[in-house]
Amino acid sequence: MSKPRKFQDEFISLAHGNGGRFMRELIDDLFARHLASDCLDTSVDAAALPIEAAGSEIMVTTDGFTVEPLEFPGGNIGSLAVHGTVNDLAVSGAMPLYLTLNAFIEEGLAVDVLDRVLAAMAIACADCGVKVAAGDTKVVRRGQGGGLYLATTGIGLRPRNLNLGLSQVRPGDCVVISGPVGDHGTAVILAREQFGLSGDLQSDAASVLPIAQALLPLPGLKFMRDPTRGGIATVAHEIANASDATVRLDEAAIPVRDPVRGVCEMLGYDPYYLACEGRVVAVLAPESAARAVENLHRQGHEYAAIVGEVLAGPSRVVLQTRLGGQRILEELEDDPLPRIC
Amino acid sequence: MSKPRKFQDEFISLAHGNGGRFMRELIDDLFARHLASDCLDTSVDAAALPIEAAGSEIMVTTDGFTVEPLEFPGGNIGSLAVHGTVNDLAVSGAMPLYLTLNAFIEEGLAVDVLDRVLAAMAIACADCGVKVAAGDTKVVRRGQGGGLYLATTGIGLRPRNLNLGLSQVRPGDCVVISGPVGDHGTAVILAREQFGLSGDLQSDAASVLPIAQALLPLPGLKFMRDPTRGGIATVAHEIANASDATVRLDEAAIPVRDPVRGVCEMLGYDPYYLACEGRVVAVLAPESAARAVENLHRQGHEYAAIVGEVLAGPSRVVLQTRLGGQRILEELEDDPLPRIC
Repeated sequence: MSKPRKFQDEFISLAHGNGGRFMRELIDDLFARHLASDCLDTSVDAAALPIEAAGSEIMVTTDGFTVEPLEFPGGNIGSLAVHGTVNDLAVSGAMPLYLTLNAFIEEGLAVDVLDRVLAAMAIACADCGVKVAAGDTKVVRRGQGGGLYLATTGIGLRPRNLNLGLSQVRPGDCVVISGPVGDHGTAVILAREQFGLSGDLQSDAASVLPIAQALLPLPGLKFMRDPTRGGIATVAHEIANASDATVRLDEAAIPVRDPVRGVCEMLGYDPYYLACEGRVVAVLAPESAARAVENLHRQGHEYAAIVGEVLAGPSRVVLQTRLGGQRILEELEDDPLPRIC
Repeated sequence: MSKPRKFQDEFISLAHGNGGRFMRELIDDLFARHLASDCLDTSVDAAALPIEAAGSEIMVTTDGFTVEPLEFPGGNIGSLAVHGTVNDLAVSGAMPLYLTLNAFIEEGLAVDVLDRVLAAMAIACADCGVKVAAGDTKVVRRGQGGGLYLATTGIGLRPRNLNLGLSQVRPGDCVVISGPVGDHGTAVILAREQFGLSGDLQSDAASVLPIAQALLPLPGLKFMRDPTRGGIATVAHEIANASDATVRLDEAAIPVRDPVRGVCEMLGYDPYYLACEGRVVAVLAPESAARAVENLHRQGHEYAAIVGEVLAGPSRVVLQTRLGGQRILEELEDDPLPRIC
């Protein structure tokens, strides 16, 4: 648990970004109070990372977060940032160790909101076993931000002998998803008052580290990715482009929760293009795919399923419909949803 | 030199941030065209860093950049970001190796501006010997950004036997500055049309890696910091706070260029609180301080000087004035200059 907050101000002002006393209080009383660890020293320019890298590769990833609203059912921008960054390392086969954090705070942001965001971040860090090693804050004028934007960089270690990547994918491989799609996207849409809708949909935002670790021992594992911006359809396109093959997804097999389907139908979104923040798309040789689904079911991911396969053929993504026909899933062009992640 | 630009659009739109084809083109034709290297693969979730860390500590730092205007005499937000991050590693005694880059782009940003920013970034990276290893872009709605915000995380290596840090500072130590102060702050102020002023002032934004490397071999070196937000006065406060001592700065010794002094007098700023982006404040034992200044003069830093000392006494910063009096330099509270770095 974090110590009680001493920070007196109710709203962030420009003075909290100027390098002086107010900024030091912001950093000490809010950021460091939640995110303190043995490797976070807010008085240094650069932090030493105690990494024992023998036999491993040092892996790095970075991600920006601009979700609106900042808080949504199932998470907030802070937990989203930790999970998103941890997940990029996890699907690369790495164990995440350290994060760095940049906050771009808009003048006028309620300190209570920032406090809840950082508290959620601290819980997510503890859950994932990562520590914040360095950070930076900037305050921008009212009307020049979106309340709060975060950027997180993750550093982890990966065994040297892993052979994961898009280049490993071959025709005949199966596509597996670890859970239902579209939950994060629809939860964020519903959380925007402008739609005048409400529902009990929750974002799926979560660490996928246990999922990735459950799949990594499978000898036929070729590739993993978390389907964030652009959803499962966009990951399928990345697979098709990189392997110069056709990815066929099976509509009947892709898990979509009923309320997600309902919201998508009402608002005209395709759930296959909506961001997930706690799912893994994995490509595996057929003999490992069934095993992967079993492993995930055993972990409690009851919706995990084989949802498609890679076929020799032109580089494209086709959806096998419930009625037995096929339709092309085009690459995403226009933006349905800014600031969804 | 970068390849010719294929990117057709004149302005950034929300579709450039959605995860689909437009975003891929933005990343490939703009970001990767400038920042390509053997360790940048825009198709992976996390990148492997080829680091040979035996005998060294892995160091990390992170920084956000919100400067307005995005381009100013002497640099732009891209070169500023690279130099700022490299400098935080350099003053920690580390050799910078890799950067990660987050871009928060406001809808409507001119692609030409982004192109120039990335070109300046590429030049700065080459100058400093660092490579961009991972990146992320987000596009936010018009009116929710400041054109472009950047966040960069730097990773480098530092010899294990270095004994640098605020905790090393003792009464009797000397404070050295590597060059004149206030140039970046005033150059950015003048570049804002709102002031209706013009001048030939240039930002001092530059890599301080050669400066730091010239000081590192000196046995009496205690601490280095680049005086960015809050200027030399704020670094002096950090030294005074950490060592529970008085820092006395000597007005006659602190180099300030005449045009900087002129602008500050006209607009009511104190140059000691203005950001520098290419200077180093160093604390050294007296026997090493003169040597430090000599080394810097030999490097062409003609303004390098001993500008103060650490004294036993209460934790505060005093300025010895030209007239022989003393005035307290208070810790910065109110914000004179948002979005200056």
